This record gives sequence, structure tokens and C-alpha cells, in this order.
Amino acid sequence: MIYVIGIGSGSKKSMTLEALEALEKCEIILGYKKYIELIKNIYPKKLFKEYSMRQEKQRCEDALKLSNENKIVGIISSGDSGIYGMAGLMLEIADEKTEIKIIPGISASSICAGILGAPLMNDYGVISLSDLLTSWEVIERRLRALCEGDFVICIFNPSSKKRFEKFKRACEIILEYKDRKTPCGIVRNGGRESENSKIITLNELQDFEKLEIDMFCTVIIGNSQSIIKNGKFITRRGY
Amino acid sequence: MIYVIGIGSGSKKSMTLEALEALEKCEIILGYKKYIELIKNIYPKKLFKEYSMRQEKQRCEDALKLSNENKIVGIISSGDSGIYGMAGLMLEIADEKTEIKIIPGISASSICAGILGAPLMNDYGVISLSDLLTSWEVIERRLRALCEGDFVICIFNPSSKKRFEKFKRACEIILEYKDRKTPCGIVRNGGRESENSKIITLNELQDFEKLEIDMFCTVIIGNSQSIIKNGKFITRRGY
Repeated sequence: MIYVIGIGSGSKKSMTLEALEALEKCEIILGYKKYIELIKNIYPKKLFKEYSMRQEKQRCEDALKLSNENKIVGIISSGDSGIYGMAGLMLEIADEKTEIKIIPGISASSICAGILGAPLMNDYGVISLSDLLTSWEVIERRLRALCEGDFVICIFNPSSKKRFEKFKRACEIILEYKDRKTPCGIVRNGGRESENSKIITLNELQDFEKLEIDMFCTVIIGNSQSIIKNGKFITRRGY
Repeated sequence: MIYVIGIGSGSKKSMTLEALEALEKCEIILGYKKYIELIKNIYPKKLFKEYSMRQEKQRCEDALKLSNENKIVGIISSGDSGIYGMAGLMLEIADEKTEIKIIPGISASSICAGILGAPLMNDYGVISLSDLLTSWEVIERRLRALCEGDFVICIFNPSSKKRFEKFKRACEIILEYKDRKTPCGIVRNGGRESENSKIITLNELQDFEKLEIDMFCTVIIGNSQSIIKNGKFITRRGY
């Protein structure tokens, strides 16, 4: 039995009862070491197996092997396991007879939206700027499509040391379509102890180096109906 | 004090500890009657106020009034309060001095994705087909944009008695871009007792009358990387 569990921000309060109950049942929990660190204190006696980044396939193969040995296995993702998480690869690798249960968590987009106000109140798109698995050409086409549709845009993996130029390029593309005054929000470590957030304009977002945008940030860019009111970033639905 | 709470599917297990704790604290809970019904049994002694559909503004004004009378008020949405939920309007209507806490829930897209498999593993767009607050012209433009970007598409409010023709039109538009064999999933009442789901192709999705697609359904349409394996709908990331 394999549970693929979304742990939200990693704090106990951001997890669903279903996720907490599944973690409780697991005999061993596999995951990226940073995420394991977040939940170790909740289950101090539990057996964990920590992995580095980019060992996604190894994690799933190990989970499958342990499950075939009749262990109850958990494999965790931050946010929602079904959004850029481990659910897809686990289902791809598994054979027909392995029982797999996907347990969604609060996604980073929902966590960050709630911190900023209510920017995702209308149609929105979620896009990762990481070009490890998706070509930059496709990412650029998708950014343009979201702008053409006047979507609110939620950006995962906005930047890293290796590819900070890409975030700059993304801002340039978005500025071809959206007003410079469009509200934007940046949340780092949403829902964690070190959480911090900022609401700025699209024009200010270009100054990404000063803003220290990195892999731990989620960036939300408004649409034509977005406003800032009482320090909150809101997309109006038009009631 | 006003808590704007996402209750996920409405079952206790799909709520976060934070949501459950906030509901516990509330002296009165406001919401659409169908959603109040879902949680009444969890808090049998709590005071609830039920509203009809389209009374969103009234709910927020009442919440504000009660909060000004020093009541601890809850206002609930199914799924995530920040995604087509009550968070935006509440923040729009509130004055600066009212304390408002947005508590996200598991969104319908996450719940339904987990039931179907892992269709939201890569960039995706969320769109409502309801033309009550958004013109059909904008909806059509957005559908085309999501197709042009090869996004996975998650459709909220796909159909109702009054506008079943619109879902048919949406399918026609999507078929201009996506392959007829693209996997699609339909989930009705995701996470509730009466839950049922189906995985079909985009070609079969056109037969919406037979599929009984209504307001209680969420529809997810894959992208070029989506597959069906062991009865699960998966979008590959390319590990």
C-alpha cells in the first residue's frame, strides 16, 4: 500500500485530517529531505527515508519495492502531491496490482493566495518556470497564452541561482501584455516559520534581484480585474 | 473577527486542522445552505445562518455587521475559499479595521485530480464556464488561450440546465486544438458520499447529455502529455 501525501506547508495545522491519518498509518515515509525535516517532529518515532532533489524516480521505485514487501509506505510532497508533486510519477511507475492512494494537500498556490489576500478569485493559470523538464520555448509560449487570456498567473519555481535570467525574461514577456501597475505578490516559505510576503506592482517585479526571488518563492501576477485594497491583493469577480 | 474558511469537500477528513480549529472558534457560521448542510453534523450545537445562491454580497455584509458587534464570525466556501469562493468579496467589502483571516481549503481541482489520478502534474489552467459574472466572449478567448498553450484544463461550473449549449460549444473549441483521444475526467460531488467519476476521451466528452454533466461536476481535460494507465489519468512531466 502506498499513500502519496500532500503535506501543505508542512505545518501540522495546514494538513488535512486525511493526510495526518495516512501519515500515522505509514510504516515508512519517503521524501525530499527538506520536506521530511518539516514533518519529522510530528512523528518522532516514525521511520523516514530522505532523498536529494532530482531523485524522484528512485523514491518511487523504492516505494514500490517496499510496498511489494507488504510495508505501508508514504511518499510525501509539499503542497499538493498532485500538483508538480510525486503523484504522477508514482502512478506511472506502479504496476496494476499496487494499491495507491493519492491524498491531496493545500497547494502552494492556495497557501500563498490566502497570505496575499484573494488573487485567485477568477480564472487562473499555474506555470513552473523550471526548464529542467519543460523547454523554455514551451514555457514562453504558455506565458504568452496566459497573458492573452487575461488570466491571473501563479508562478512556481520562479528563479534559481542558475537561471535568474529566465525570470527577468518572463517579466519582460508579461509586460508586453499586462499593465505595469498590475498587482503582484511574492511569498517565500508560505505557511512556514520563516514566511514572508510582499505585494508590489508588475513594474517593481522586474527588480527581481533586490526582491531575492528564489526557488522557495511563489509569485502571483494579477489580471485586469486585480486591485490592492487595505494592503490585500484581490481579483474582483464582479458581483 | 471574520474567518473565511475553505471546507474542502465538506467531509471532516478533507479539512485542515486550521480550518477545523477556526470553525470551532466561530460563534456563528454563514454560508450557502448546501455547504452548511455538509458541516452541520460536525458542530451540532453551533449557530449557522444559511443563504441561497447569488446572495454572496448579503453574506459578506452580514458577516461584517456581526463582526462589528464583536462576534467571531465564520463564512464558508466549499473547496478553497480563495478560488471562486467568498474570500475576494469579503476583502472587497470589509473596511480597514475589520480583522479577516483567509483559511484556504483543498480546492475542487485538487480533490478531483486525486480521484482521477494525477492529471495536474504540469502547467494547468482553471476556468469557470459560468457566464453570470464573466462574458462568454472572455470565456471563449480564455479556452482558446489555454489550448494554444497546451495546458491541462480544469473546468469549474461546466454546465447547468440553463446553459448546457455552452458546454457543447466549449468542447467544440477545445477540439479545434486538442487531439480527440486526449484523456478527460469528470468528477461529480468529489469527496462526498455520492461521489462518482469517469475517465473518457475528449471525443466522448462531447456527449455531455449522456454524461449528465452539471454544476456539481468538475471536468479535467489533459494536454499532449496526458495518458491513461491502469485506469488512472496521468499527465507526464518527463522525468
